[in-house]
Amino acid sequence: MPDAPTTTTATATTATPGSGLSDDRIRALDAHWRAANYLAAGQIYLLANPLLTEPLRPDHIKPRLLGHWGTSPGLNLIHTHLNRVIKDRDLDAICVWGPGHGGPAVLAGSWLDGSYSETYPDVGRDAAGMARLFGQFSFPGGVPSHVAPETPGSIHEGGELGYSLAHAYGAALDNPGLLVACVIGDGEAETGPLAGSWHANKFLDPVHDGAVLPILHLNGYKIANPTVLARLPRTELDELLRGYGHEPVHVAGDEPFAVHRAMARALDEALDRIALLQRTARAEGIAERPRWPVLVLRTPKGWTGPEEVDGLPVAGTWRSHQVPLPGVRENPEHLRQLERWLRSYRPEELFDADGRPVPEVLAEVPRGDRRLGANPHANGGLRLRSLPLPGLERYAVPVDNPGATLHEPTRVLGGLLAKVMADTEARRDFRIVGPDETASNRLEAVFQATGKAWQEATLPTDEHLGRHGRVMEVLSEHLCQGWLEGYLLTGRHGLFSCYEAFVHIVDSMVNQHIKWLKTSRALPWRRPVASLNYLLTSHVWRQDHNGFSHQDPGFVDHVLNKSPAVVRVYLPPDANTLLCVTDHILRTRDYVNVVVAGKQPCFDWLDLDQARAHCARGAGTWEWAGTENGAGEPDVVLAAAGDVPTQEVLAAAGILRRHLPDVAVRVVNVVDMTRLLPKEEHPHGMTDHEFDALFTRDRPVIFAYHGYPWLVHRLAYRRAVHPHLHVRGYKEAGTTTTPFDMVVRNDLDRYRLVMDVIDRTPGLAVRATAVRQRMQDARTRHHAWIREHGTDMPEVAEWSWTG
Amino acid sequence: MPDAPTTTTATATTATPGSGLSDDRIRALDAHWRAANYLAAGQIYLLANPLLTEPLRPDHIKPRLLGHWGTSPGLNLIHTHLNRVIKDRDLDAICVWGPGHGGPAVLAGSWLDGSYSETYPDVGRDAAGMARLFGQFSFPGGVPSHVAPETPGSIHEGGELGYSLAHAYGAALDNPGLLVACVIGDGEAETGPLAGSWHANKFLDPVHDGAVLPILHLNGYKIANPTVLARLPRTELDELLRGYGHEPVHVAGDEPFAVHRAMARALDEALDRIALLQRTARAEGIAERPRWPVLVLRTPKGWTGPEEVDGLPVAGTWRSHQVPLPGVRENPEHLRQLERWLRSYRPEELFDADGRPVPEVLAEVPRGDRRLGANPHANGGLRLRSLPLPGLERYAVPVDNPGATLHEPTRVLGGLLAKVMADTEARRDFRIVGPDETASNRLEAVFQATGKAWQEATLPTDEHLGRHGRVMEVLSEHLCQGWLEGYLLTGRHGLFSCYEAFVHIVDSMVNQHIKWLKTSRALPWRRPVASLNYLLTSHVWRQDHNGFSHQDPGFVDHVLNKSPAVVRVYLPPDANTLLCVTDHILRTRDYVNVVVAGKQPCFDWLDLDQARAHCARGAGTWEWAGTENGAGEPDVVLAAAGDVPTQEVLAAAGILRRHLPDVAVRVVNVVDMTRLLPKEEHPHGMTDHEFDALFTRDRPVIFAYHGYPWLVHRLAYRRAVHPHLHVRGYKEAGTTTTPFDMVVRNDLDRYRLVMDVIDRTPGLAVRATAVRQRMQDARTRHHAWIREHGTDMPEVAEWSWTG
Repeated sequence: MPDAPTTTTATATTATPGSGLSDDRIRALDAHWRAANYLAAGQIYLLANPLLTEPLRPDHIKPRLLGHWGTSPGLNLIHTHLNRVIKDRDLDAICVWGPGHGGPAVLAGSWLDGSYSETYPDVGRDAAGMARLFGQFSFPGGVPSHVAPETPGSIHEGGELGYSLAHAYGAALDNPGLLVACVIGDGEAETGPLAGSWHANKFLDPVHDGAVLPILHLNGYKIANPTVLARLPRTELDELLRGYGHEPVHVAGDEPFAVHRAMARALDEALDRIALLQRTARAEGIAERPRWPVLVLRTPKGWTGPEEVDGLPVAGTWRSHQVPLPGVRENPEHLRQLERWLRSYRPEELFDADGRPVPEVLAEVPRGDRRLGANPHANGGLRLRSLPLPGLERYAVPVDNPGATLHEPTRVLGGLLAKVMADTEARRDFRIVGPDETASNRLEAVFQATGKAWQEATLPTDEHLGRHGRVMEVLSEHLCQGWLEGYLLTGRHGLFSCYEAFVHIVDSMVNQHIKWLKTSRALPWRRPVASLNYLLTSHVWRQDHNGFSHQDPGFVDHVLNKSPAVVRVYLPPDANTLLCVTDHILRTRDYVNVVVAGKQPCFDWLDLDQARAHCARGAGTWEWAGTENGAGEPDVVLAAAGDVPTQEVLAAAGILRRHLPDVAVRVVNVVDMTRLLPKEEHPHGMTDHEFDALFTRDRPVIFAYHGYPWLVHRLAYRRAVHPHLHVRGYKEAGTTTTPFDMVVRNDLDRYRLVMDVIDRTPGLAVRATAVRQRMQDARTRHHAWIREHGTDMPEVAEWSWTG
Repeated sequence: MPDAPTTTTATATTATPGSGLSDDRIRALDAHWRAANYLAAGQIYLLANPLLTEPLRPDHIKPRLLGHWGTSPGLNLIHTHLNRVIKDRDLDAICVWGPGHGGPAVLAGSWLDGSYSETYPDVGRDAAGMARLFGQFSFPGGVPSHVAPETPGSIHEGGELGYSLAHAYGAALDNPGLLVACVIGDGEAETGPLAGSWHANKFLDPVHDGAVLPILHLNGYKIANPTVLARLPRTELDELLRGYGHEPVHVAGDEPFAVHRAMARALDEALDRIALLQRTARAEGIAERPRWPVLVLRTPKGWTGPEEVDGLPVAGTWRSHQVPLPGVRENPEHLRQLERWLRSYRPEELFDADGRPVPEVLAEVPRGDRRLGANPHANGGLRLRSLPLPGLERYAVPVDNPGATLHEPTRVLGGLLAKVMADTEARRDFRIVGPDETASNRLEAVFQATGKAWQEATLPTDEHLGRHGRVMEVLSEHLCQGWLEGYLLTGRHGLFSCYEAFVHIVDSMVNQHIKWLKTSRALPWRRPVASLNYLLTSHVWRQDHNGFSHQDPGFVDHVLNKSPAVVRVYLPPDANTLLCVTDHILRTRDYVNVVVAGKQPCFDWLDLDQARAHCARGAGTWEWAGTENGAGEPDVVLAAAGDVPTQEVLAAAGILRRHLPDVAVRVVNVVDMTRLLPKEEHPHGMTDHEFDALFTRDRPVIFAYHGYPWLVHRLAYRRAVHPHLHVRGYKEAGTTTTPFDMVVRNDLDRYRLVMDVIDRTPGLAVRATAVRQRMQDARTRHHAWIREHGTDMPEVAEWSWTG
């Protein structure tokens, strides 16, 4: 390794006063660090004898040894020193622990500062509590081995790596008094999302936002390999970090006291610099983008753990990643090594006879809400205020007759969002994120109320950029998602507007967020946070410019695999329903709400009152569109979910009304997809009685769905009518083509739907042959027309419900 | 903008001779560039009058104006100059066009070099062909507006941004004679995957791999915003690129001839440097990681297009992103502007009366396979050789009695893969990629045959690292996926071994790859490439260390939404079936094969012959495990897909055999999930006859599935037996716990399955109450035991089929 961690290097950059801590204080820091290391190792190994009051025996050892030791000493070091600066400077600070698999470390820190026992009174800060802390770790019914929602002070699950820095920036936005430290492991640093997150500093407003202090922890190894960044020559690493816009401050070493001194000095230097940058920007305005500090900490993996096990080096290598001594229960030599290792922390100096940390250990630990395990920002629901949401009347479009007018739903929504933006101007607790698509998605009215966050240079031709803007646009779905997650988990509100196809880029992130919310909801002390709201527009049916690569409606399928308690999916069919749905989701808590709505001109079907009623039901009959006479059941049900399917279903209903007026057609529209699920499987699910009343038990149901058709089967397979359910949707028959050609290619067009009705309604096939032929002819006409003109034929392009 | 693109800066770094091209040659380059720009604009606008032989009229204009102009002139410039150096140096080169939405540019280049007309003879290199080239662009039934499989010379769809550089590195691996130029747009550069890909140079072997030349194209804007990198101060950008390990070479300007000269000089400098680095490494061995050049090209977005439209600046701003003059058919001023714009290229100097490019335009264009549109590397199937696959006998585990022995399936597979690695030592056309998990996934036998690619410094404690290794480990699923895609699309073979949960990180990438393959299969000239093979291990049921965040079996659901012609999903239940499945998938072409298999000790059920037969069928009855007497239908079917479900089903079958021996149980095992689909929906699908024969039409089917249970319903809802199908699987009831507790939490355990059989088999509920109670008791016992011991109770942990 070019820079082996054997010496302590002085801090590398501009001269700072240095903290010059007394030897006593350094000793106290070391005591805290040793205590945390002891507690981390104890969690991995000990079932009993937590204070080592007797010689270690195999029956003191857990039967299954689980957990990650390697990163823990480094995390503990950071925790110890963050405590000190928080206390010294009375900082309002949280920490995002990127190497969250080092759960034992973060739990140790929280137990030491007392916040753990306040959160979980059964795990007291005493010997019995310590035994419980050890016993529950990674034990069935206990606590996860990673930093998780169960961990006090955390907003970040460290299981899936890549998102720590984005979360940290999200937490810092609009929190001018907050410092967000963010530990980035050198493993995580290899991921794409993390690599892309460094540039988030181009969007951080030094006036209205807080500060992020990235702490790049180079312990040198992943699971079984060295890491890329740890093996870079130091000059190259510095160039990289400067290229990211940071000023690096280095700490390296493996001699504890030297590292403590260097770490204290480095943290003071970094925090002085942050304070200066903020003071200057706030007093004098922002002259240029600040060059924020980054702390680079180089310490050995598995530091202070066993140096060698079974003749192989462990500390300082990847072998310390998980459990460095695996055979403790069976192997007396391993047991002896473990005891030596644990006693090396001198627990008898750290804990009193009752297992309580001695005063020296706690000397540098902050109090109350300042503790990292207790800061309310990390339990954002505590700080959450409801959004000021205006009445919808001002934004709704008038609808005298269904289908008589056209509006772009997202543009209509833009008006509402602009008002929310304006009304949160002072509070600054609402943000819109998106990959450079706010205007393209026709939400640009929001720019009347705020700008797009931007701290780089501007040119006279730029529009809507602003140092204090609350729309966040960057061509990284990962960063958008990470920012918003961090923002929400610290108690604010937001909306992610995204291309439907490309939201799959964050599939795994939304998985983790849903898991976080599901787990949080079972923790009474975790207060509900605002929901994560997606507006998926530029959807599969309107990729006229972009074609096949931009066509994918599968995100709905993806989220519907996850916890029903958390997931909601809405497909508003027009502008007013989109308003109602958005108004609703902005009031909800602890959900992931997925809204799919087009930005292209779309018929207005429902006025505001009707839209409210329809959205409240989530699914219902549109009597005005059907031909039921009110007596008994219809002959056929035509159902739609999604704006384009709704249009095609209504066109089909119009054709049926005209050409087969005696067929009793019921038109059903579904806004809330989870209504289709059984009541037992989703809180929004319909009872069988409700479902049967809407869809019948035995009539053919032709269902035009926005996405992959089998999703509807998967939701409705238990219903009586299921054998009669026929679903049309997107089946990967995509390309660059016209809107109507897209529905024809996927057999979702009005003509095909009418043919489906004819083919599946008993008795109709024979007497409707002429109408069926007409439909066939229309499709043939379409194919010929489009080949020749490249546009949709006038009868389709100019169609209107009322026409 | 700190470095406005108004001047041509000299190249910035070490002195190079400079190419000193004659004025004639520069003029020829400019002619080619103008021709390409003309053709790009023509594709967006013109339906007729391709050579502007008459004044432009509205009816010459396409009815729908689609496409992306903004990036096209820059791409054309790069194409023009790559042509020159390829010809001058007789380079074997391909180009990955990151800004692939600039389809018009890449199509123009391919049409000019003749490769387009050779690939598509109906689009000749003459006036009629030009008219067709224009007319088909983004026209229904025509060609997509993006670089796509239809584009000759491409291995990269530019629709979803982020993967160009990873693809480029994948193409360069094991192609020592190949240069892969890679254009990275400054929009794409903001994505996480691209940001993470820069470090791929730490894995590129200068001896056995080819070279990648990144060309960072800073045209300054995304859709509606400036880009982060274009607004960095030049010094900061240089630090960033040096930090990435590159030596930057700059070209900037907007005066064409100055830019041509600077670009020629810069390319020569970069290529000289690459040649020197390769020569040195190959002659003298690798002393240190080379510092490869990166070319930074700063030219205006929409360069040479309209400067101003309707009073607003367009060229040099984001407004030129798509169609700079939107109203050409209706607005005479726009039409006049378009004509002026098109004529500014002086088409009459570029094309003869028949529409053929004049000799000057083609003077710097290479010939034959050297053309970027014709290089066989970009149609990898042309170069593909079948893998040497050994007989499986040597690697299979002996199975005398089912369930009598245990093996770790992936460790067994490791033997086979090691042999494939060894047998491709000279050919170097097989790679394994994974996020630092090859050893953790127990495939470490491969390290007997090759090392892990690594070009950074090494330490004495490192293991298996090697400058020439063919295992690629980096903690970035995006990079793994991108490398492998690039490697496969250039005609080689590979395997991606990944944590099951975290393969969702590349959901969107696999979407795009499946779309690529689906489209390619319809193009006769695109030769089949090796399949993209996933080995998903460390699966949902065995996250003892990691818990809930690592539990997600949804990737199978995700891929099964995509084109059935491309997607295959296998769940081998033991070591020998894993061998057979892997042997099979390594022989296939143009598929995405998903294999889910555990790495933990697993019972051996089938010997090699049985495994072969079972895998060939994809699903079948395990007679030895059931209690049918061969006469008539069974009373109940117990089906399993996946290793853990198979174990639980066999345990349940054992219990039934012991306690309810008169119940005729059929045990079915499914390896190939797509067998469950109807024949009409998937090539592997069963006919109803086959399905009914296996699962019956009306007996209860208790199906234990590895993943989300509703997937099985979605696959089988059309079958006669569907109303009797009861599926157990993972339902997000996860945490850090023991293996058996995981199945209990998700109701997939043997006791629950037996209860399901009793509850659902007609007549059994009454007479099997005692057995049912026993099952309840066992579950109660489990809960108590695990709370106390934290391990699985002995009757489960020590259970064996034969015991």
